[in-house]
Amino acid sequence: MNNRRIVVVGGGAAGMAAASRAKRVDPTAIVKVFETSSHVSYGACGIPYYIGGLVSDVSKLVSYWPKQFKEERGIDVSIRTEVKTIDPRSRTLRCIGQQGEIEEQFDSLILATGAKPAVPNFRGMELEGIHVIRWLEDAEKKASDLGASKEVTIIGAGYIGLELSESFRRLGKQVTILELLPRPLPNVDVEVSELVKGELESGGVRLKLNEKVLGFEGRDRVEKVITESGSHETDLVVLATGVKPNVDLASMMGIQLGTTGAIKVDETMRTNLDQFLAAGDNVETRHLVTGLPTYMPFAQTANKMGYVAGANAGGSKEIFRGVMGSAITKIFGLEIGRTGLSEAEAKIVGMQTRGVLIRSRTRAGYYPDSKEIWVKLILNATNNVIVGAQVAGREGVWGRIATLTLAILNKATPKQLFFYDLPYAPPFGPVWDPLIVSARVAMRQ
Amino acid sequence: MNNRRIVVVGGGAAGMAAASRAKRVDPTAIVKVFETSSHVSYGACGIPYYIGGLVSDVSKLVSYWPKQFKEERGIDVSIRTEVKTIDPRSRTLRCIGQQGEIEEQFDSLILATGAKPAVPNFRGMELEGIHVIRWLEDAEKKASDLGASKEVTIIGAGYIGLELSESFRRLGKQVTILELLPRPLPNVDVEVSELVKGELESGGVRLKLNEKVLGFEGRDRVEKVITESGSHETDLVVLATGVKPNVDLASMMGIQLGTTGAIKVDETMRTNLDQFLAAGDNVETRHLVTGLPTYMPFAQTANKMGYVAGANAGGSKEIFRGVMGSAITKIFGLEIGRTGLSEAEAKIVGMQTRGVLIRSRTRAGYYPDSKEIWVKLILNATNNVIVGAQVAGREGVWGRIATLTLAILNKATPKQLFFYDLPYAPPFGPVWDPLIVSARVAMRQ
Repeated sequence: MNNRRIVVVGGGAAGMAAASRAKRVDPTAIVKVFETSSHVSYGACGIPYYIGGLVSDVSKLVSYWPKQFKEERGIDVSIRTEVKTIDPRSRTLRCIGQQGEIEEQFDSLILATGAKPAVPNFRGMELEGIHVIRWLEDAEKKASDLGASKEVTIIGAGYIGLELSESFRRLGKQVTILELLPRPLPNVDVEVSELVKGELESGGVRLKLNEKVLGFEGRDRVEKVITESGSHETDLVVLATGVKPNVDLASMMGIQLGTTGAIKVDETMRTNLDQFLAAGDNVETRHLVTGLPTYMPFAQTANKMGYVAGANAGGSKEIFRGVMGSAITKIFGLEIGRTGLSEAEAKIVGMQTRGVLIRSRTRAGYYPDSKEIWVKLILNATNNVIVGAQVAGREGVWGRIATLTLAILNKATPKQLFFYDLPYAPPFGPVWDPLIVSARVAMRQ
Repeated sequence: MNNRRIVVVGGGAAGMAAASRAKRVDPTAIVKVFETSSHVSYGACGIPYYIGGLVSDVSKLVSYWPKQFKEERGIDVSIRTEVKTIDPRSRTLRCIGQQGEIEEQFDSLILATGAKPAVPNFRGMELEGIHVIRWLEDAEKKASDLGASKEVTIIGAGYIGLELSESFRRLGKQVTILELLPRPLPNVDVEVSELVKGELESGGVRLKLNEKVLGFEGRDRVEKVITESGSHETDLVVLATGVKPNVDLASMMGIQLGTTGAIKVDETMRTNLDQFLAAGDNVETRHLVTGLPTYMPFAQTANKMGYVAGANAGGSKEIFRGVMGSAITKIFGLEIGRTGLSEAEAKIVGMQTRGVLIRSRTRAGYYPDSKEIWVKLILNATNNVIVGAQVAGREGVWGRIATLTLAILNKATPKQLFFYDLPYAPPFGPVWDPLIVSARVAMRQ
């Protein structure tokens, strides 16, 4: 019997998890990874921190180097290698890399091409000083361009935009965020957005909402951002307008896309083409609250999808059921987490909801250094089940969101949340934990 | 129709929660609380921190004062009032308080008499400088006696003993803990006890294990602790040898006790006597992993039991299903939490287990100030379900224990734990969260 040949296209979180798992499941398999950029297996979520100097060296974002994959795991990694075409019938791909053009035959292939920046068609994008952060290389270039700049403009108030704003403030820059929508972080509800606004303000970030960017002006380098309402002086622009699935190769091959525009896969991460799997920020998955397709390009999800795709390509059987929409970030001193559905997301699927917002503390009243924390629960108004939650606070947010993720997965009612036997001691919360307080308020209504 | 008369015996966490809930459910009810000590509704868990000066004033431990209960909630609270006898047939109690002896008639009664120190019969207990902490008054007395003392001995290395040791070190005392068992914090497994040992050592606490205390010697004030292996000089002794349910009144009335020695109640917190309920550190409850009776005198559980007892006494219907054994503490810089069964507890109920212990970090590798964290999973060897967990670390322990509490309640396998959609961002954990790492290791075995 011939050795199984598995090819992975893309060496990000999903791709390297897939390659590693496939090789672990079938150690006799020949596993090859092709990656366009110079790095594989890096923490893209760390780029905003690198830019702000919190991470001293870009190489610290790299978990494993190609050499390590070869020596420790027996996986061939080709960096700076672009896959040009894939023929699904003959199971052959053609790529161009450091050794010129090569053809590669395989038994199964995992598409882990990730996401790419969703950049609107602004005027003046060719000017110097306008950046889109995508790869580690870009981050290094950005960091060097930063030195002289004083007035940074960030387009977009999502996770990356907000994290970057903090990084730039840490470097002593003037920072303005321009956001098209009427509030920052639109995947949380309006009350939580208000907390984020306050935090940005006290961090010295100028946040301009309802600002539709039209383009950029300048001699060689950007000098002004032009919006519908006027113009802003700037000497550096970073676009943080979100990402979209990178489905170019998939489309070319006739792989089916889903309603979100990302690759459609089943629970085993298989596409509509036999022996072609996909995993990571290029696929859609099922939202476990709505049961509907959703696009959630998050690192941990990408890792797990890669794990499942790799296992199945290697001959094992694993299932990826879907996501809960859990996410977290930290902006200056404020931690903000969310899981399940926001009020807006519930509305889209036609669910009537009611919301409960409480403010509490992170430690017992008498214990020093207690901090503020807010818990928002979103309940299905029909059956009183918790369908979403958001927590903001100066500590303790991760744990409360993780707990609520499982509560929502269990279809818990507020009363069930109230009775969960959560650990208690004075340094970790009041004896009525913020979660219990939110449950009690929801029970009263 | 006459107003419902509800009497609560004991004004601690359970008693005041019961009184408040009963009055809320039936606002026409006459609700009276009798409390032996001078305070109700205080955070007993804060006493070790008060002693160490972390809480400046004993009154800060009090959440509500008797006057507030009267004015804000319409509840009569009699402090320094001891209930002497209760006649279940005539539903009459006799108590002695500030107004002398009174008799009180009631329709239903909630016993919330709490726990009392379980103090072994040591020689020389009459000496000065030997303390048992039970009430806030004691704490105040202790604090004043502390001033001159230099060599403190704590008997018992459970939660309270350990928390006190840190408090005394903060005050600059020499601190020795004497523990009968071969390791500290015996409700966690041996590996976690080892971490606690290391933390006590680096905090400058002398921990002497396998030390059976026989008694105390001294002229008027304690000068020596005598153990089976020798004697230790000291000028202050604090007994932290655990608590036992305070069931004196219950026994006198013929209320049935359970196998643990605490009051037996059903899920509505009713005892075997009609119209007599009980809640808090004087009752046993069901362990939700084993289904067996268990005695867990913890503040949050007491509050919830009180809530249920009060609701039912007031004419509503609430259920308290049981506990998971969740607990947490912080000793110097180390947070230690546990939930479900320890290996020893599993053994007692005849369950074959296997354990998994991993060490990980609390933040992404490249993110500054990442700290160590350990996760221990205990699995039922027969069906591979997680039945217990312990986490120790320098941050992030509460959230991981809370999450594992729900996972264990769901009878999750390691694979289910692996796939939970936990929130991720670099300041909160590695992309493979410590929980996911523990799940992966357990999956491999």
